[in-house]
Amino acid sequence: MSLLLACDVGADEAETWRAALSAALSGEHLLTSSQGAADDIEVAIVANPRPGTLAGLPRLRLIQSLWAGVDRLLADPTLPAGVPIVRMVDPAMSAAMAETALWAVLALHRGFFRYARLQGEGRWAPHGQRRADELVVAVLGLGQMGRGTSLRLAAQGYRVRGWSTRPTAIEGIETHAGEAALDTLLAQADIVLNLLPLTPATRGLFDAARLARMKPGAGLVNLARGEHVVEADLLAALDAGRLRHAVLDVFQTEPLPAGHAFWSHPRVTVLPHAAAQTDPRSAAGVVAANLQAWRAGRPLANLVDRQRGY
Amino acid sequence: MSLLLACDVGADEAETWRAALSAALSGEHLLTSSQGAADDIEVAIVANPRPGTLAGLPRLRLIQSLWAGVDRLLADPTLPAGVPIVRMVDPAMSAAMAETALWAVLALHRGFFRYARLQGEGRWAPHGQRRADELVVAVLGLGQMGRGTSLRLAAQGYRVRGWSTRPTAIEGIETHAGEAALDTLLAQADIVLNLLPLTPATRGLFDAARLARMKPGAGLVNLARGEHVVEADLLAALDAGRLRHAVLDVFQTEPLPAGHAFWSHPRVTVLPHAAAQTDPRSAAGVVAANLQAWRAGRPLANLVDRQRGY
Repeated sequence: MSLLLACDVGADEAETWRAALSAALSGEHLLTSSQGAADDIEVAIVANPRPGTLAGLPRLRLIQSLWAGVDRLLADPTLPAGVPIVRMVDPAMSAAMAETALWAVLALHRGFFRYARLQGEGRWAPHGQRRADELVVAVLGLGQMGRGTSLRLAAQGYRVRGWSTRPTAIEGIETHAGEAALDTLLAQADIVLNLLPLTPATRGLFDAARLARMKPGAGLVNLARGEHVVEADLLAALDAGRLRHAVLDVFQTEPLPAGHAFWSHPRVTVLPHAAAQTDPRSAAGVVAANLQAWRAGRPLANLVDRQRGY
Repeated sequence: MSLLLACDVGADEAETWRAALSAALSGEHLLTSSQGAADDIEVAIVANPRPGTLAGLPRLRLIQSLWAGVDRLLADPTLPAGVPIVRMVDPAMSAAMAETALWAVLALHRGFFRYARLQGEGRWAPHGQRRADELVVAVLGLGQMGRGTSLRLAAQGYRVRGWSTRPTAIEGIETHAGEAALDTLLAQADIVLNLLPLTPATRGLFDAARLARMKPGAGLVNLARGEHVVEADLLAALDAGRLRHAVLDVFQTEPLPAGHAFWSHPRVTVLPHAAAQTDPRSAAGVVAANLQAWRAGRPLANLVDRQRGY
């Protein structure tokens, strides 16, 4: 049997993946194209595969995503039914996400985005300083990344409140679940950090109605998916002064199109979908371990629930 | 006896201090002017007092600084000799300093200042991602603020190396002392964080020669005193591309003068001396505790060594 690596990413990035996986999967037969070998491929290792890629593999038995988010993969109508899909859970990626989240929360808390604006105007204007324990930070999404981020934020003294669609416990962190609890939490949070998976239930979560329920002057950090936010509604909330600032790593269209209002908005920080990249060095080892477990018939961790959408 | 509060700060800030200290020191006779009461004043509580203020107090027995840095206080030639001076060590201020340091280190590590520049140009250009444990962060100055900051950085996974003029141990952190060790450390550090007190030995520490010993592409974070850095030499190192970026909270002249090259330099982040403010709410309690210890004849913590300069 063979393994197919299907990465529709830049050539350099694809080669980095190929090299890292070849090293971690020595002894395996790793192909980068299914041409002429489709019948032999039982495992597909994918990062943003072209729609249809997996449909032509009659003996496919396992799909390993190199990305944590599988919403684009699941949106492919030709995705073979019944083949188990494993999401990437890479400790280096979770750490990177926690770093970006911590940076954004510190910057919002201490007003460093405001100071950057003032520097542009040549203005020296120190503002007051709140203690971390005076701020409520809501973390939406309590998977591996949400948990790790919540714990790091709590270690800095923030009053962290976790939220997820289904009840989830994290030791030392107050957590909530369900839509009613979300609205209560949004009204209390000084900073809202979105790490939710994109599913039919979370698409468009931050629309005008929900943004209106946020605490006046709050900050929004979206490190999950652009489709979680109704962009026009967010712009309106920022322009009305209801929200203080937004840190956005993800967008409806990526790369963010030239001329989009976010690029030049003084209250928006744009990151180029770089909050957390999977690290091929550690992720290749995760793939190898998952493959070994699958071969041995052991239960697979981080299996995607297609019904749930992640 | 009376206590004199001598704050040459803005009127609002002075009133905040007066109110916080009055509450914490109920029962004490707290004056805001020595007029007519100079003979009765035994304790002066000071924040940037006008030079000469303390010289006219014949019965002065204790000086409590509301600021952590006492370099300006010690520079007053009329400062009464022999009167013990206590520096402010406020846990809220140390936490604020660690927050600013952590934000700056995360931003340098993950290239968030670069992304801010790219946003200004409307450019979407993600760059690679290093793990925290691939970066050496040098923390210069291992007083209460340096220790707390070192521990928080180490908790994020950075390879933290502490440095101070005299040998100082911090559990779990590799520390060094002395000038030769400093040069070795600067050659290894990806990020250098300055939290040193300003003394004759540390004035002008970052001059052309020392900046030239730093690792190419390193970042410098100065949260201590402007006089630690020779500004023209830093600009030259940035312009030559030897240093990647500088985060500066303190300057030779504050507020930073209009037209100063730092304001518009693409590789300089200017903060308005706001990295860590003393928090009157907690600091007033620190003053009350120190006063109580002094009255009871107990040894005073955080006494200034005038010879050493901090």
